[in-house]
Amino acid sequence: MKNKTPYTKLCDLLSQNHALETIVRLLEWDLETMMPKEGIHLRAIQIAELSQIIHKKKTSSAFEKALSACISLKTLKIKEKDLSKREEASLHLTAEDFKKNKKLPAKFVKELTQLKAESSQIWAKAREENRFEHFQPHLEKMIAMMRKSADYIGYDEHPYDALLDQYEPHMTVKTLDKVFKELKTGLIEITNVLFNRSKAPSEILSQTVSHDDQLKFCRSILATLGLSPDIARLDTSSHPFCNSIYSKDIRLTTSIKPHTFFNAIYSTLHECGHALYEAGLPYKDFGTPLGEACSLGIHESQSRFFETFIGQGKPFIHFLTSKLKGLLPNTDVEKMYEAINVVEPSFIRIESDEVTYCLHVMVRYELEKKLLDGSLKVKDLPKAWNELMKLYFGITPPSDKEGCLQDIHWSLGLFGYFPTYALGNLYAAQLHEKLREVHPNFDALVQSGHFEPIINWLQSHIYQYGREKTPEKLVTDATKKPLSAKPYLHYLKSKYKVS
Amino acid sequence: MKNKTPYTKLCDLLSQNHALETIVRLLEWDLETMMPKEGIHLRAIQIAELSQIIHKKKTSSAFEKALSACISLKTLKIKEKDLSKREEASLHLTAEDFKKNKKLPAKFVKELTQLKAESSQIWAKAREENRFEHFQPHLEKMIAMMRKSADYIGYDEHPYDALLDQYEPHMTVKTLDKVFKELKTGLIEITNVLFNRSKAPSEILSQTVSHDDQLKFCRSILATLGLSPDIARLDTSSHPFCNSIYSKDIRLTTSIKPHTFFNAIYSTLHECGHALYEAGLPYKDFGTPLGEACSLGIHESQSRFFETFIGQGKPFIHFLTSKLKGLLPNTDVEKMYEAINVVEPSFIRIESDEVTYCLHVMVRYELEKKLLDGSLKVKDLPKAWNELMKLYFGITPPSDKEGCLQDIHWSLGLFGYFPTYALGNLYAAQLHEKLREVHPNFDALVQSGHFEPIINWLQSHIYQYGREKTPEKLVTDATKKPLSAKPYLHYLKSKYKVS
Repeated sequence: MKNKTPYTKLCDLLSQNHALETIVRLLEWDLETMMPKEGIHLRAIQIAELSQIIHKKKTSSAFEKALSACISLKTLKIKEKDLSKREEASLHLTAEDFKKNKKLPAKFVKELTQLKAESSQIWAKAREENRFEHFQPHLEKMIAMMRKSADYIGYDEHPYDALLDQYEPHMTVKTLDKVFKELKTGLIEITNVLFNRSKAPSEILSQTVSHDDQLKFCRSILATLGLSPDIARLDTSSHPFCNSIYSKDIRLTTSIKPHTFFNAIYSTLHECGHALYEAGLPYKDFGTPLGEACSLGIHESQSRFFETFIGQGKPFIHFLTSKLKGLLPNTDVEKMYEAINVVEPSFIRIESDEVTYCLHVMVRYELEKKLLDGSLKVKDLPKAWNELMKLYFGITPPSDKEGCLQDIHWSLGLFGYFPTYALGNLYAAQLHEKLREVHPNFDALVQSGHFEPIINWLQSHIYQYGREKTPEKLVTDATKKPLSAKPYLHYLKSKYKVS
Repeated sequence: MKNKTPYTKLCDLLSQNHALETIVRLLEWDLETMMPKEGIHLRAIQIAELSQIIHKKKTSSAFEKALSACISLKTLKIKEKDLSKREEASLHLTAEDFKKNKKLPAKFVKELTQLKAESSQIWAKAREENRFEHFQPHLEKMIAMMRKSADYIGYDEHPYDALLDQYEPHMTVKTLDKVFKELKTGLIEITNVLFNRSKAPSEILSQTVSHDDQLKFCRSILATLGLSPDIARLDTSSHPFCNSIYSKDIRLTTSIKPHTFFNAIYSTLHECGHALYEAGLPYKDFGTPLGEACSLGIHESQSRFFETFIGQGKPFIHFLTSKLKGLLPNTDVEKMYEAINVVEPSFIRIESDEVTYCLHVMVRYELEKKLLDGSLKVKDLPKAWNELMKLYFGITPPSDKEGCLQDIHWSLGLFGYFPTYALGNLYAAQLHEKLREVHPNFDALVQSGHFEPIINWLQSHIYQYGREKTPEKLVTDATKKPLSAKPYLHYLKSKYKVS
């Protein structure tokens, strides 16, 4: 015990904070899945109390002292000798995190937390009642807080960069604008063709299956993808999610209704993508930044990879229908494939198909940049939203409920978050392209349910690195190509036969 | 915010600590019911980390300052004016708790926590392998720690008093010896008669019921007793328990196997007794001592009241069988009553009947007093155990597994805990006697499933007081009689027709 190095001492502190953070995740999981309704009052207090303790610990002078013994917070020069490259990378990340955490004054963090709680409640009510004007003053306050937040964090070019960096480290408006422009142009070209094609019938997707049978089937998907019950469990919640307590205790959920079995299946696949990533993070680095996921964009790339690139392809539908025989009267592969891959204009992002999904994200990205730099006033948001919907989809939401009030994100101050959904699809497309090169029998592997070689490749090229590399470097190293919309557009054109 | 009184400020700190303590309870519940197996490594760290934070907060100088602003820790004179009697009682309890918490040095608490973790693992293995000698050195260490603990806490007459007080405030060896002597003598008189009666057949209790049907039925018991799913849930675990997160979020468990449906039912009834008490604690005092249960003995009185005094009586068996029709082929009331109330010598406490249960407790009470004062050496424990078993039950355990290795308590340092199990039965008998006086139609109420008047009486005489009164005063006020073994012995003699 006496011979602990400064680095080991720092890791102890990191592990302590991390253990507390993982408790918050469990409290959130329990809230959505298990908690009796009346537990909510105490749960809010528990989470707030613990979060405050964590923030204090992460910004404490004791932590600063332990960190400074390993690395200079001014010059970022490593002080401790004999560290491995990975340990040095870990120190740099820890120093970066600490400096970020210190930038937001405690008083501001507390105010923001209160505003989030208030504003998300107001938003839920405003959405239900379709009264944007009730949410407007809260959104105005939130945007003012976001600007303040960007100022505290600091940025070189656009205040949006400061917010973006919280979710996708080192990503900038400059890069996004370039990549998203290509993406948007390409997607509109594709939808111009697809929106005019006739729609396949969707009845095959609404065959009734009992709650228990759906849950059992979805749990078997976890097993198929190698997620053993010893490290992962699937339950139900109103919105699907994946909370990793840590790499050996992962809680997934799906949402089950009698007529929406396929939603349950594809939500499960999506969350399995997240779970596989979490399960594959380097266990030995658990508690330090190296044991954490790289970014939200990379995380989303893993979920979208399994949900759409694998899940919505014909080989997987073959595999799926073979498992569904006996559970469904109609398991016609072609009909199911067509129904699952219907592309059409839609109002609601989370219900949209794989082609239009990123267009929904574009609407939000463009609007939130303008809200943040003041070129769009909150009161004009509904109009601006509807104009973009008309432009990209050719349809106008019947009400704000199906328009600018549909997502919870802004009420929670999650500005800069939406782009990571689109980035996830782009990253996934690049990985998918590369995987087909590495495994020319990709389709055969999927059709026969042999996902191991695919997951192994993701393990050695994505999962194992944790936060060691930036998102950009991680994807470039894995695919030998820089971030680009091309592989995604190519994938869509080829799959949907748009020349 | 500026006008907070010292008392309100203290209550804020108490609520914060309490919120953290309730998280530990949720972590423990999740561990036993939901957690994937591999989660155990992190769970141990989470609980240890949080427990340490709680202990620090409860003994911090900030807490001492806030407390001292309300009450003098030396003279126990209340400093704050205009407090109600209840608030003054709360301050006295808080001061008492604080002084107790400060008595154990942080280093000692840490050592004890480590020893518990180690020793309970060794115990589990020793029990499995029936090797007392492997557990012996750890038990010796634990007893030395218990003596130290008693010295730190302080006592007037017997070191055991210091330990006892942790679970049953103000209870002493002097009182217990007197009450338990009468209890033991009475029980031996009764068993001398009952052990010689012929045993009713028990096949009716081992009728097979599916896991899902058992769980559904046990959940209906919660509803029958007024525990709505909005505030309480029932799951399964290897050993039944009730963890109250707080009065509006209570987690109960039962244990289910195909042939032991009645164990599941009676465990559920037992845990429901605990849950009703927790649900009835004064909500407005939540976070302060007044919102806590009075003692372990009082808690156990509530569980035993529903499990045995109500559950094993003929009126309840009538009610139960009416519900079991359709689920079981044989629902003969008389046969079921006889089978449920078989009295016989047994080796295992938790499997014993309501008559012999307290004799099992006596064995432990007598031995742990001697272990603590040194008049019994740990190496002689198995022999001493078996001698008492012979004396009270007329049987000798075939091995230590069925003898002195059966309970986990000593490995966890829970010395002074066992007597509360017996006290629970005595308190319950007193309450039961009083309730029959207050509600002469007690049997009719139970038989028709109208538990509300009974629960209402417990609410107004037990639940609502929290820790406001000592266990002794609580029971004396409710029953107008002091603690005594008489009502319990009278109940048994009358039920089992022993003159």
